[in-house]
Amino acid sequence: MLNAKFDACIQACSNCAIACETCAASCLREDDVKMMARCIELDRDCADLCALAATLMARDSKLAQEICRICAQACRDCAEECGKHQMDHCQACAEACRQCAEECEKMAA
Amino acid sequence: MLNAKFDACIQACSNCAIACETCAASCLREDDVKMMARCIELDRDCADLCALAATLMARDSKLAQEICRICAQACRDCAEECGKHQMDHCQACAEACRQCAEECEKMAA
Amino acid sequence: MLNAKFDACIQACSNCAIACETCAASCLREDDVKMMARCIELDRDCADLCALAATLMARDSKLAQEICRICAQACRDCAEECGKHQMDHCQACAEACRQCAEECEKMAA
Amino acid sequence: MLNAKFDACIQACSNCAIACETCAASCLREDDVKMMARCIELDRDCADLCALAATLMARDSKLAQEICRICAQACRDCAEECGKHQMDHCQACAEACRQCAEECEKMAA
Repeated sequence: MLNAKFDACIQACSNCAIACETCAASCLREDDVKMMARCIELDRDCADLCALAATLMARDSKLAQEICRICAQACRDCAEECGKHQMDHCQACAEACRQCAEECEKMAA
Repeated sequence: MLNAKFDACIQACSNCAIACETCAASCLREDDVKMMARCIELDRDCADLCALAATLMARDSKLAQEICRICAQACRDCAEECGKHQMDHCQACAEACRQCAEECEKMAA
Repeated sequence: MLNAKFDACIQACSNCAIACETCAASCLREDDVKMMARCIELDRDCADLCALAATLMARDSKLAQEICRICAQACRDCAEECGKHQMDHCQACAEACRQCAEECEKMAA
Repeated sequence: MLNAKFDACIQACSNCAIACETCAASCLREDDVKMMARCIELDRDCADLCALAATLMARDSKLAQEICRICAQACRDCAEECGKHQMDHCQACAEACRQCAEECEKMAA
């Protein structure tokens, strides 16, 4: 397959996109939504960057590396914010973001 | 998690989206691209439907079920076309599409 | 162009997707985010449905009509919720959703 | 509106995304698909980058500027390839890509 070398990073990005969507939707159903507003913002951007990164790696696009660099940044920001909150969805998202950031940083290096 | 009940279908959709993107990009690099044109068309629509279905299920959206119904149709069409071609990427895509169609059909039922 | 007959609907969907993204981001910065939580949920789904509908119409996909039917439903739901709030971003979004719903309903008919 | 300052660039990105989807779908229906394979590849990446750039600007995301820089690059590549082909869809796409590249370069500056 043309993208076999990206497999770990594609998986990490796909997982992280779903974790971020889950976290954003769950944050919107928390009692104190205002406390989660920054988390929701970062989740949304991170989800969309991860989805595009996975897609461009699947295509073996020449832009994949550059998107992975920005995706890593989105993941680091999101992990930091999610890590502040104790809900399961935030902790799971923070962990998915950290794993994805590591894979994307390897890709972008 | 708000979407735990959709987990198998979310995974099948995420996998299928990547398989379709891989197949489309690989088809575009085959010698006989014209023979693969219909496959590429169906891959693209199937990839985008799968990605949206996974996203809406992750959010526990009330539209998830309806999108899964259309996604299943896109997967069946794509599996049929990919199944006609012997390349590894087409065979892998056809298999991912069949698995995703089954999961989406359960969701939509 | 292969999609000339869809032009008005493609434009309405593109406009609506941006209006929904704008509204969701603006709602997240309101003082009373909790009051806007349902609006944000519906904005997100509507934005993603509109984006996919525009894409599938641009491709003259055979799934375009079915997606437009679901997109119209997402637009009607979002317009109803946004219409309850007096902020400019909600009123602009409600209007974009109504226009998009009308175009999508014509497409789906 | 939180994104009023990005309005011209959001519009250019939305237009370019549709022009790229139209061009890719039209290329796939040409008699000589092989001649268009590179065009289709670049159209796909450019469409997805433009869509994400428009979305992130609509959200006033702090990643908008970085994505616009990569989007400009995708638009320049796509415009160069599309510009080589005389079909209406390629010429229209090349023009949309050039306009979008200019707006994105202003954003990224």
